[in-house]
Amino acid sequence: MFILYGIGALLLRLGMAIHAAGMVRSKNSSSILIRSLADICLTTLAFWALGGAILFSSGKILDPHLLFSLNSAFFLVCVTLVASGIVTGIASERSRFLPMCAVSVLLGALLVPIVARWQIGWLMRLGFIDAGRVSMIHLTGGLCGAVGAVMIGPRSGKYNRDGSSNGIPGHSVPLAAIGALLMFVGFIPTILGMAANGPMDLNPAGNVLLAAAAGGAASLLLCHWRYGKADVHLLIVGFLGALVAISAAPNTLNIWAVFIGAVAGLIAPLAALHIDLIWKIDDPTSGIAIHAVSAIWGIIAAGAFTAAPFAARMKQLGIQIMGLLAIAALSIILSGALFFLLKATLGLRAKEADEFDGLDLAEHDIGAYPDFQQTTIKSYHLREA
Amino acid sequence: MFILYGIGALLLRLGMAIHAAGMVRSKNSSSILIRSLADICLTTLAFWALGGAILFSSGKILDPHLLFSLNSAFFLVCVTLVASGIVTGIASERSRFLPMCAVSVLLGALLVPIVARWQIGWLMRLGFIDAGRVSMIHLTGGLCGAVGAVMIGPRSGKYNRDGSSNGIPGHSVPLAAIGALLMFVGFIPTILGMAANGPMDLNPAGNVLLAAAAGGAASLLLCHWRYGKADVHLLIVGFLGALVAISAAPNTLNIWAVFIGAVAGLIAPLAALHIDLIWKIDDPTSGIAIHAVSAIWGIIAAGAFTAAPFAARMKQLGIQIMGLLAIAALSIILSGALFFLLKATLGLRAKEADEFDGLDLAEHDIGAYPDFQQTTIKSYHLREA
Amino acid sequence: MFILYGIGALLLRLGMAIHAAGMVRSKNSSSILIRSLADICLTTLAFWALGGAILFSSGKILDPHLLFSLNSAFFLVCVTLVASGIVTGIASERSRFLPMCAVSVLLGALLVPIVARWQIGWLMRLGFIDAGRVSMIHLTGGLCGAVGAVMIGPRSGKYNRDGSSNGIPGHSVPLAAIGALLMFVGFIPTILGMAANGPMDLNPAGNVLLAAAAGGAASLLLCHWRYGKADVHLLIVGFLGALVAISAAPNTLNIWAVFIGAVAGLIAPLAALHIDLIWKIDDPTSGIAIHAVSAIWGIIAAGAFTAAPFAARMKQLGIQIMGLLAIAALSIILSGALFFLLKATLGLRAKEADEFDGLDLAEHDIGAYPDFQQTTIKSYHLREA
Repeated sequence: MFILYGIGALLLRLGMAIHAAGMVRSKNSSSILIRSLADICLTTLAFWALGGAILFSSGKILDPHLLFSLNSAFFLVCVTLVASGIVTGIASERSRFLPMCAVSVLLGALLVPIVARWQIGWLMRLGFIDAGRVSMIHLTGGLCGAVGAVMIGPRSGKYNRDGSSNGIPGHSVPLAAIGALLMFVGFIPTILGMAANGPMDLNPAGNVLLAAAAGGAASLLLCHWRYGKADVHLLIVGFLGALVAISAAPNTLNIWAVFIGAVAGLIAPLAALHIDLIWKIDDPTSGIAIHAVSAIWGIIAAGAFTAAPFAARMKQLGIQIMGLLAIAALSIILSGALFFLLKATLGLRAKEADEFDGLDLAEHDIGAYPDFQQTTIKSYHLREA
Repeated sequence: MFILYGIGALLLRLGMAIHAAGMVRSKNSSSILIRSLADICLTTLAFWALGGAILFSSGKILDPHLLFSLNSAFFLVCVTLVASGIVTGIASERSRFLPMCAVSVLLGALLVPIVARWQIGWLMRLGFIDAGRVSMIHLTGGLCGAVGAVMIGPRSGKYNRDGSSNGIPGHSVPLAAIGALLMFVGFIPTILGMAANGPMDLNPAGNVLLAAAAGGAASLLLCHWRYGKADVHLLIVGFLGALVAISAAPNTLNIWAVFIGAVAGLIAPLAALHIDLIWKIDDPTSGIAIHAVSAIWGIIAAGAFTAAPFAARMKQLGIQIMGLLAIAALSIILSGALFFLLKATLGLRAKEADEFDGLDLAEHDIGAYPDFQQTTIKSYHLREA
Repeated sequence: MFILYGIGALLLRLGMAIHAAGMVRSKNSSSILIRSLADICLTTLAFWALGGAILFSSGKILDPHLLFSLNSAFFLVCVTLVASGIVTGIASERSRFLPMCAVSVLLGALLVPIVARWQIGWLMRLGFIDAGRVSMIHLTGGLCGAVGAVMIGPRSGKYNRDGSSNGIPGHSVPLAAIGALLMFVGFIPTILGMAANGPMDLNPAGNVLLAAAAGGAASLLLCHWRYGKADVHLLIVGFLGALVAISAAPNTLNIWAVFIGAVAGLIAPLAALHIDLIWKIDDPTSGIAIHAVSAIWGIIAAGAFTAAPFAARMKQLGIQIMGLLAIAALSIILSGALFFLLKATLGLRAKEADEFDGLDLAEHDIGAYPDFQQTTIKSYHLREA
């Protein structure tokens, strides 16, 4: 079954690539997919070369038997690809290609394996609840992406001098929505695979579906209340945020799954707006809100709604927050160190002219849609004079 | 296994969304995907809140354990999403967003669960043959969509004063074809999951594949005979119609699967043309022909080709027709009542100006493809002066 | 499980269709998908009608029980669809529709079943190593496509009088990359299904993933070394080539999987360039390099790196080469005979005017993207005056 769960996680990864491709401008749409391909290759090799040794504490790097011995090792590589895919999306449209390859290596070789090891080590002994390993996949990837977004800076033209934010629409809403739906389909086996070591007497699949539905419905209501219309991107953020949040506790009872999902469906879109408008962190795919913020909510909710007396729940909540802080600190420190190093050496950011031309042309010498006329030759590139 | 079959049904649902997105004009292509997302959320919640209580006659609404207790409940929600997705496609390009949400609730809370309950109740006692539950998924969805299409009316510019019909091409044939192929892939596990309660000593997967192939080949011949060329949309209608038809009796012997599929591959495209040209019911995705018409043929064929003496087969045929009539009557009455109510209150139909601008802009304030030049600013919108 | 592996193979087939659709010009993008649909139908029927009789030596054609009796028969049809899909891609953009239907029939009825039968017959007795049946799927399809590409000739405008080659970019890089990623996802269950009869004590899934990663990374390095940039098409060729190569021996030890994959990631892109620039065989999807060349490398590597003393390995290598030659000869002779016959009767090649207009319009009377302005009315069609 781990093989099938792993294939489900690959479908989730493919959905992330499609979603990200739809969310960027057409001039960067090849670039984001080339990065997804490279990320899949490099993260896998890094996990095999070093990450596995850390996770299984085998002491051997480049272990010739690693992916042979355990079907679960295959599954773990597949979910690590999900974590690294988050960063690819968040850093799109203005980062350079090579430094992003180094980020894939960091996630596959160090960050995800260390957190995975903590989860079966001291966190498990403490009683940290995270059945779907959301802190290992989504929190690490989301925070690494957030650190990257801050260090790389926003896309040119994203923020005006008066502090206001310009929406930079992705080149294909259908592609983004199809990617989000495929992520939804892939999420279910991924979460099941992760929760397979926990108590499986109950049915996580139904719960995940219900939480996603509640999240989508909540963000639909939020949109109608605030804007009087269903906004496709906020709807997607709420829908996917609910899937991330329920990952932390897919075995909770239905009625709580509805609640956890619905709250995630409110928190994630509001966080996406807040990150963009107030914190001015530029995140083309809203990956920080979908993955990091919803993961934090999910971990907290998993502790707060555990079936126990009040005092025990408060204690559990403390454990959850401690675990969150430890994992967040590790993610931010490792990512920050790497991005700092990369910025000082290779340089993180594409030249402004390259950003203007689009990374497809500048870095890969290709146009994504040669047969179609585009609204301006180089797609729009905003800049205040 | 029900989890995997359910994931297969979600792939089928995703294929339907992609197919529908390709079949509408670019100005409505975000709209149809937002509706698919909302439909998935609302149908799931409605099934959980009320539909499950009807289906399992548990007497509890908002049952906190419903999706926990049974893996098959997860699968049933997934196939209910397929039923409601049919209506989303048929009613696209001119219906309003909110009333369509109510339709999702109707299907998830009442129509599909009632038919599902009939199928394990009085229809089963009568000996109604429908191994793949085609009457529960495709007949209900297809007829609900047909009622909707009649009540909403055709898209502006679809029919001329002299009664002739204009073809309104979808904005992306590749997207439509890719969606149809993904539906094909998802159909196999869906049918297997449905038939899993029936006799599984034989191999429905091979049968389904063969019927689809026969259906596609038959509609290919039909196209070449009538038009001298392979028409992609009629080919898709025949191919998918055969998959629907064989759902009713996936356990029939190969040679009959070929026959049932091939006939469906003729009936479905001819029905699609008839519905458009003679009945003047506007159905952008040909969902009525694919789902409702092929389901009727499948149910009848399942009775007619059952392995029994002639008299028993005639009796079986009577049972099949009686079941069909009962389910069709329920679908039409419930859908008709809802659409009537919605028309009298919210209004079913988008304003003509909104239809002209496209629902993406009018209802969701977004353009699907901002980087591409379109053939006219608002895509073509036909109207006789 | 064979059902699930078969569904995985169908996802691989769908990925091939999406990849090919992205690699052709927009004026041929409907055509390629119609052909994929027709190919799926006709290959399935041909396998059922005749191929199964050959493979299982049942002596009955049109066997009414064939796809009933064995789940593995369903799986075998699905992988046969992969073989025939290779030819569809290679022959795109300039071949006529009807002759290509005959090619689907050849592959489904004769070529793949005969090789499959050899593999469980005299090749197995000889000790031919090909756990993932790469010679049955990829070598047959790739060589049949190569014969077709030679007999049909290059697309107009592909080669100049001075012998230089024009790049004819596909209409959608994102579609091509998404298709390639879906192929990757589908490859894993396909290979697992194929290898399921061999020793399964080890974990082929992890191996396949690792080989693909090594192949992608190797072609990334190759691109950077030769061109100073990551070329998306060469990267895809290397990535998919590694998946094909590892199919021959998915049960080899990890460390060899990395080596086999990495070498395939070098050989396949170089072969693609060589076939285009030196041999001047026009292959829009690089299917010959991805499938045929990588299959040859995979079969040879499977023999060369078998765990045995040097003399035994040399003997094994001889057996591998003999098997390769036999299968290649059969593929080339059968395909050559059919293409020769088709050329003499129906004609293989579309009229130049039809090629200029695009096969969508010429053969199927449809435009793939009616809502979008294209860079020239008929997309670019190169021709030296």
